[in-house]
Amino acid sequence: MNKSQLFDQILRKQSFLCVGLDTDIKKVPEHLLDSNDPIYNFNKAIINATAPYCVAYKPNLAFYEDSGLQGWLAFEKTVAYIKQRYPDMLIIADAKRGDIGNTSQLYAHTFFNNMKVDALTVAPYMGEDSIRPFLGYHEKWVVLLALTSNKGSIDFQLTEDATGEKLFEKVLRISKSWATDEQMMYVVGATQGELFEDVRKIVPNHFLLVPGIGAQGGSLEEVCQYGMNKTCGLLVNSSRGIIYADSSEYFDESAQIEAKKIQMKMKQMLEKYL
Amino acid sequence: MNKSQLFDQILRKQSFLCVGLDTDIKKVPEHLLDSNDPIYNFNKAIINATAPYCVAYKPNLAFYEDSGLQGWLAFEKTVAYIKQRYPDMLIIADAKRGDIGNTSQLYAHTFFNNMKVDALTVAPYMGEDSIRPFLGYHEKWVVLLALTSNKGSIDFQLTEDATGEKLFEKVLRISKSWATDEQMMYVVGATQGELFEDVRKIVPNHFLLVPGIGAQGGSLEEVCQYGMNKTCGLLVNSSRGIIYADSSEYFDESAQIEAKKIQMKMKQMLEKYL
Repeated sequence: MNKSQLFDQILRKQSFLCVGLDTDIKKVPEHLLDSNDPIYNFNKAIINATAPYCVAYKPNLAFYEDSGLQGWLAFEKTVAYIKQRYPDMLIIADAKRGDIGNTSQLYAHTFFNNMKVDALTVAPYMGEDSIRPFLGYHEKWVVLLALTSNKGSIDFQLTEDATGEKLFEKVLRISKSWATDEQMMYVVGATQGELFEDVRKIVPNHFLLVPGIGAQGGSLEEVCQYGMNKTCGLLVNSSRGIIYADSSEYFDESAQIEAKKIQMKMKQMLEKYL
Repeated sequence: MNKSQLFDQILRKQSFLCVGLDTDIKKVPEHLLDSNDPIYNFNKAIINATAPYCVAYKPNLAFYEDSGLQGWLAFEKTVAYIKQRYPDMLIIADAKRGDIGNTSQLYAHTFFNNMKVDALTVAPYMGEDSIRPFLGYHEKWVVLLALTSNKGSIDFQLTEDATGEKLFEKVLRISKSWATDEQMMYVVGATQGELFEDVRKIVPNHFLLVPGIGAQGGSLEEVCQYGMNKTCGLLVNSSRGIIYADSSEYFDESAQIEAKKIQMKMKQMLEKYL
């Protein structure tokens, strides 16, 4: 999926919601546990319920890996299901990979060629040659960690060099020369508030993947005020707030209600800031 | 495995070699491709051939993930095989994971509890709360990226702050307050030469996992001169130079010869610098 197709979807659905499929087997409603593939069946129900209100899904690999082979299979089946049933949906594998060149090449092949996801989160610490191999795929996206939503983002990402440039700013400045805004997005946490202004000074046109709304406490209004650009430029993720809204057999209806609530706020934001 | 057990193994074998099991199905000798599990069978032969000359194995997850479920199964079987046959061997999963706390917790559970590896490489960019969950396991190790062996290490890891401290130095300084040298090691590339002296000023007692000998061009002598401490403090990795020494049916014998060559040099280094 390319940038203009993504923007079209945002306009059509009046939503820039990304639903995080952080599917924890321990939180899957009890009545699904007897089915032959509870993780996949949970995901399918969540996807069918939320698809009208979001433009992207972001399965986090940690949740699938922890269930071993069964988990990987559920991940593959989930991606295939979205691709087949909702081909206009962006699928982001949240895996935070990155290694020396020959190894990153394999990770890129795994996720883009084998798994057929559209985008992959990647960690920047190892520099250019650890990122390049992910950029060789047509209409596939690298989502590079810039300024994350967690408390530990302060430890290294905000370190200033002698000129006053913070590490996350350097990551943005340097990495944007490796690829266009058709190939790269950045992770910027919703908890970072007014730092969105600093991000937008460096990457005015890129899409940002924004975790940290909901459970982590970020504000949607603030993110939009400082982060939205003329093609929206935001994919705001919500995971736990949607998929675990309810642990009863009506979990999917409750997920739909939560997704719709966020979509309605997003519609207002688009009217106000786009 | 704890630190003193690791040092005992090093003294006993006169080796601080870690064999990187970067097993690429495209490079597995032809005669193995007809077997029911070529990756596992290749690994088994390499392990049996090299075990007398090394103290650790480091399977790199990228190579296994790229073969899908079959690859994950081969990884699991390889770890189980080493555990059973060579229980004194340290097993490092090279996966470079790291995410927000609740997600890192799952990665830690996957690798330490399910997969039963002894150590896991972790990326530092997201800071303390992304690392902490890996530190809660008895006699398990976090191997934190500090100064990597690749060209891109220059992009961010060498960035100096206003006081002249480089990012990798800050990573070492800050992270060593999170855990003892019984819980944490650091990745420092063999290609970094005299920067080992700077590393040792900050972490004199920690073990360092050192990739970059061989295919990447680092010097063993230089690494030992600047990096060895009184409990050796080095695990020097070689992957391609050993496991792909030969693509014939005698690949394991050739791997053994290469491993033994390195072990003999290591014996000299231990006599000279320990």
